[in-house]
Amino acid sequence: MTKQTQKQNKRMKLAQVLHMNGGLGKSSYASNSLVQRKVISITKPIIEEAMTEFYTRMLPSPHTISIADLGCSCGPNTLLVAAELVKIIVKLRQKLDREPPPEFQIHLNDLPGNDFNSIFRYLLPMFREELREEIGGGEEAGRRCFVSGVPGSFYGRLFPTKSLHFVHSSYSLMWLSKVPEGVKMNKENIYIASTSPQNVINAYYEQFQRDFSSFLICRSEEVIGGGRMVLTFLGRKSASARSKECCYIWELLSLALKQLVLEGVIEKEKLHSFHIPQYTPSPTEVKAEVEKEGSFTVNRLEVSEITWASCGNDFHLPELVASGNEYNVAKCMRSVAEPLLIEHFGESVIDRLFEKYREIIFDRMSREETKFFNVTISMTRRE
Amino acid sequence: MTKQTQKQNKRMKLAQVLHMNGGLGKSSYASNSLVQRKVISITKPIIEEAMTEFYTRMLPSPHTISIADLGCSCGPNTLLVAAELVKIIVKLRQKLDREPPPEFQIHLNDLPGNDFNSIFRYLLPMFREELREEIGGGEEAGRRCFVSGVPGSFYGRLFPTKSLHFVHSSYSLMWLSKVPEGVKMNKENIYIASTSPQNVINAYYEQFQRDFSSFLICRSEEVIGGGRMVLTFLGRKSASARSKECCYIWELLSLALKQLVLEGVIEKEKLHSFHIPQYTPSPTEVKAEVEKEGSFTVNRLEVSEITWASCGNDFHLPELVASGNEYNVAKCMRSVAEPLLIEHFGESVIDRLFEKYREIIFDRMSREETKFFNVTISMTRRE
Repeated sequence: MTKQTQKQNKRMKLAQVLHMNGGLGKSSYASNSLVQRKVISITKPIIEEAMTEFYTRMLPSPHTISIADLGCSCGPNTLLVAAELVKIIVKLRQKLDREPPPEFQIHLNDLPGNDFNSIFRYLLPMFREELREEIGGGEEAGRRCFVSGVPGSFYGRLFPTKSLHFVHSSYSLMWLSKVPEGVKMNKENIYIASTSPQNVINAYYEQFQRDFSSFLICRSEEVIGGGRMVLTFLGRKSASARSKECCYIWELLSLALKQLVLEGVIEKEKLHSFHIPQYTPSPTEVKAEVEKEGSFTVNRLEVSEITWASCGNDFHLPELVASGNEYNVAKCMRSVAEPLLIEHFGESVIDRLFEKYREIIFDRMSREETKFFNVTISMTRRE
Repeated sequence: MTKQTQKQNKRMKLAQVLHMNGGLGKSSYASNSLVQRKVISITKPIIEEAMTEFYTRMLPSPHTISIADLGCSCGPNTLLVAAELVKIIVKLRQKLDREPPPEFQIHLNDLPGNDFNSIFRYLLPMFREELREEIGGGEEAGRRCFVSGVPGSFYGRLFPTKSLHFVHSSYSLMWLSKVPEGVKMNKENIYIASTSPQNVINAYYEQFQRDFSSFLICRSEEVIGGGRMVLTFLGRKSASARSKECCYIWELLSLALKQLVLEGVIEKEKLHSFHIPQYTPSPTEVKAEVEKEGSFTVNRLEVSEITWASCGNDFHLPELVASGNEYNVAKCMRSVAEPLLIEHFGESVIDRLFEKYREIIFDRMSREETKFFNVTISMTRRE
């Protein structure tokens, strides 16, 4: 096997393992994606602004508006933004009195390990039901809004040249295409931590640069001139990649893993070889890559925050650290990280690990205010 | 619930139940689809001719060639025709010296109950591997050939207006959108049989006309002028819908079901209310609908045959009634009909039913030559 093939296989393997927990059960991503929903709700005005500007300025109006959601996962959020975007256009078209009403092509993308069956069987009928009232009777809606599943990594090409008008991605682009080379020195830290050596941080950052730049090149080929892209990363406000803003949640998981090492449940070497393939960028880092690639102009660059406490079950309640919220944070992280953890440590340690993790999160949440930071960038493809 | 909604629900229910057996296990469609593969192989020259004519005449060459396979199912045949079509274009382009090489958009459609996860996880990597040699290195192939899954009934719209160049469908269009109204009188016949009253046959035929005409209207909107469509039905040569050519395989399943009624395993009433939502048309019936709809010109209309014996495991062996072939015919029918049978009779009767069915098929195959008949139509969308 050549080094090239080995590399490809390794990358392919991550692409197979990295996916949210499928199905609709209690550990599924579908049941534990409130943070992600909250993020979409916070960024909604930015998405709305981008689509409104696109549709108002794009003349003649395209007959079919082609929208892609990259890293759509499988859960209540999967078609949330798509539904919003369709509704925005339907209202705008009436206001602007444009004829004929456009058709919509919605592309849902995620890695091949994502549970597309559940999207198609359970989420799509609800989506169509929701849109029925917006865009006319059942038949009419079915004739106007077409949905497809597109499996593959968004670090490669996914769509034909100049075929997209609007690209959205939320809480997906912080996932790297692979664990960076040269992070062995990170020892028992599973992600960048306050004690991580500088070369480990550089390795993570360089991988982010390579990946995000591949992403931008591919999208620049796929998005038509004047098309829009709104991306939200789990990120940080601080210039330092060591900031607690972004590393804390993984540091606590490291702590839980270390406790299992002490208990003899996990081997030390096994922990040392586990690395989360993620990079949580600052707004400056995101913008720098966009400007370096050069095909997109930046319209907006914003940072938002959500407290861990808002992982709580009731989305509409005030975000107090209600009893049980630590449970939800742990469950949310479990639905995201479980496939990676099972692949590396085996299934038998998982329940115990998340019990520990929950305890640790509970302890921290009761003593300090803990937050996730989101970086959102809105841009236009140059003509 | 209004009558309209009831109807919609009923139709939706069939759309949820009607799918080939998923996964890759021993009862899966994936492991039991040799007949379908054989059919594709027989119709290959027609597919090849249609694509060659399309690409040669279509000037300027489209930048992206958009191909849809409707009723793709999940198995070794799923991407077979798509791969052939891509290879045809790649060779033609070199011969005709056209620049630049086109991109391909492959749409795989089936009902939402189809196992798209297995297509995306297991079949797609093999497809890409196969095409790698044809259309250049791995990266290049990935940048040129885009695959998407499109869940939904092909009796409704699936794609944006004028977005397809080539539509293929094999062994799918004989499935009706629902059990026709007015087939109660068919009693213990689960499909049209020699003893079926004429009004039952009419009910089946009228449902076929309604469904196939919906199909043609939808495709006429989606396929661009000059675009091609090649459809193969499980059908018959004879003018009579009562012909053994098409009804025999289901009559034998009726026999097996009747035996289970005699044994007290299945209630008589339960058998009387079971109807296979299928219609196996003659070439004349297919052509009549195409001409009635009027958007497509017919280039070719052909009937081909395959012996049940060629369901055998080794595709390349002479098609003798080798011992064990009855096993394969039964397994093939099981992978196709099991979801419908389970829905109606419950899971507990299935193994016993197919044991009976296998015995009956064995008996008949040893006494007579039994065949499937296929109707293939090749057409062009009028400009």
